[in-house]
Amino acid sequence: MNALELDTVLLSPDRSGLDILDQTLLPGEVKVLHLQRLEDIWEAIRVLRVRGAPAIGVCAGYALALAAAQIETENKEEFFRRLGERRDYLASARPTAVNLFWALDRVMAKALSLCDRPLPEIREALFAEAHAIRREDIAISRSIGEIGFSLLRPGCGILTHCNAGTLATAKYGTATAPMYIAREKGWTDLRVYCDETRPLLQGARLTSLEMLSAGLDTTLLCDNAASSLMKSGKVDIIFVGCDRVARNGDAANKIGTSGVAILAKHYGIPFYVCAPSSTIDMSIASGADIPIEKRGAEEVTEMWYKTRMAPEGVGVYNPAFDVTDAELITGIITEKGLCKAPYEEAFRSLGIGK
Amino acid sequence: MNALELDTVLLSPDRSGLDILDQTLLPGEVKVLHLQRLEDIWEAIRVLRVRGAPAIGVCAGYALALAAAQIETENKEEFFRRLGERRDYLASARPTAVNLFWALDRVMAKALSLCDRPLPEIREALFAEAHAIRREDIAISRSIGEIGFSLLRPGCGILTHCNAGTLATAKYGTATAPMYIAREKGWTDLRVYCDETRPLLQGARLTSLEMLSAGLDTTLLCDNAASSLMKSGKVDIIFVGCDRVARNGDAANKIGTSGVAILAKHYGIPFYVCAPSSTIDMSIASGADIPIEKRGAEEVTEMWYKTRMAPEGVGVYNPAFDVTDAELITGIITEKGLCKAPYEEAFRSLGIGK
Repeated sequence: MNALELDTVLLSPDRSGLDILDQTLLPGEVKVLHLQRLEDIWEAIRVLRVRGAPAIGVCAGYALALAAAQIETENKEEFFRRLGERRDYLASARPTAVNLFWALDRVMAKALSLCDRPLPEIREALFAEAHAIRREDIAISRSIGEIGFSLLRPGCGILTHCNAGTLATAKYGTATAPMYIAREKGWTDLRVYCDETRPLLQGARLTSLEMLSAGLDTTLLCDNAASSLMKSGKVDIIFVGCDRVARNGDAANKIGTSGVAILAKHYGIPFYVCAPSSTIDMSIASGADIPIEKRGAEEVTEMWYKTRMAPEGVGVYNPAFDVTDAELITGIITEKGLCKAPYEEAFRSLGIGK
Repeated sequence: MNALELDTVLLSPDRSGLDILDQTLLPGEVKVLHLQRLEDIWEAIRVLRVRGAPAIGVCAGYALALAAAQIETENKEEFFRRLGERRDYLASARPTAVNLFWALDRVMAKALSLCDRPLPEIREALFAEAHAIRREDIAISRSIGEIGFSLLRPGCGILTHCNAGTLATAKYGTATAPMYIAREKGWTDLRVYCDETRPLLQGARLTSLEMLSAGLDTTLLCDNAASSLMKSGKVDIIFVGCDRVARNGDAANKIGTSGVAILAKHYGIPFYVCAPSSTIDMSIASGADIPIEKRGAEEVTEMWYKTRMAPEGVGVYNPAFDVTDAELITGIITEKGLCKAPYEEAFRSLGIGK
């Protein structure tokens, strides 16, 4: 199996629902869920069957287009009212990834821009918009991949955290795109190190699967072994994804990313955030204003929901994300180009957030 | 249950074997193994049924005294030859914790000092020496606890990594001793944060159990959430244990400790290593010379041996320990006093390593 052949989320050919790869079952089982009800799609986002900021965006775009097709009314006012409700409902699935809101707002805006057209035409246009989000996401990942690839040297060691891979996007991933591009160009000697990424182990379950299936030398480590690995000199560069970037460059990503960045600074290793420009939120001044999702204790105490590993009654601190301060980031790679500090200036010069 | 009432390792009253608390079953089950064969004691150290540098030392002392009692010969030369073999065998159980060698050498030295005495007297003296190691360990922990306690303020937040608790010693622990002392003095408002400590989860399974059972406000976190927690301002001080300290102050401890120290420096939080003077190895110049145990891949890929969480074929980087550079350590607390850099000078001024 090559992970690039797995589609994270597609509109079913008969448009009856979404076909979502259930990533909670990987790497053991490859199972595609056919979800028709909006509640089931909401749940799939909530419990991370589909996850990764770009893939969540693609899923949300399709979900709102599907919702539009399912609204049984020919009254346009009623249609827009109910579409708005569904937009808000989907937006409540997860709070941190800005792509969720970005994709929903983009589909909503398309609908509103066509408000004087017949409903069947609007419904059709929303499917087209969702398809466009997916197509563009693939192009964005490739562009980030080319820029990231230009930073690599043959035989270098790359550390990544969590999964910002093809499974987190429509294809190629963001943090993994440089490695996929390197493989396409025939490079075989990259060494990839995957933080396992507790509590939900996206690095162990997903990224190491992706990198192995791409034929790369792949090593898994516990998150707390990253300092030892960096000290050993095996890591030359670090790529991570992100869920939201503030206009000053502070980047929210999977819990632990800020720690990796601090270690990278300590050991003098370049640390790059791979960020589709849709994840850059110019309305937010700094990371302190990014809402951070707090998740359930059982993710920490019950080890992938199988066995209780902590005493009853213990408190649990389980934020899903943390914020990496801009000063710790060597560069932010967007599909429009590589940004260096000061970030707000760099974003604006690339036309981001105009 | 109060964790202080659990004994990690005792000589059976009839001296037929060792009674070892099987810590791999905690927090779910409290089971004491009665082990008579040296091979079973070796295995108990190897697979961490008994763990923590001081507790391993106590166990090794008793194990060698037991071995001496089990050597069926009245020939003294034969006795010392076989005792030496058993010393080497026990020393092979784990490579990093210097207390293992320290305790074995201390019991060996006692035997050799009595080489002109009758064998029954030597055997008896070795049991007495092992008892002394245990008694002294308790006194050492209390002394470290008093010094650490003097660094606390009411209501402060304490982060610890792995388990340097009562379960890692004969009683009180090293990194947890300040908290036990605080409880004895009636302090109830300390907040304790426990890194879960992958792969074997000693923080989740053991330290959080200890701190809860001591009646303290106890919160568990994934190792990679420590950066986020420190940034939030909730951590005022950090205590960790150690397995071996080089004479320059570089300290080997559970994998991840060096990362915690780097984060602490970044956020300006004092970071203390709690080290019985027996863990300070003046024969080693720096951390680069401390051998680091590499452990099996299945600890990382199979999540406490229950469910495979990573693809077949992935490489695994799984060192059990890492080295925290002396420059990252605010102070090293020994039972003889608090040491500050330059450490070699501080150690010598306390009479360590004469």
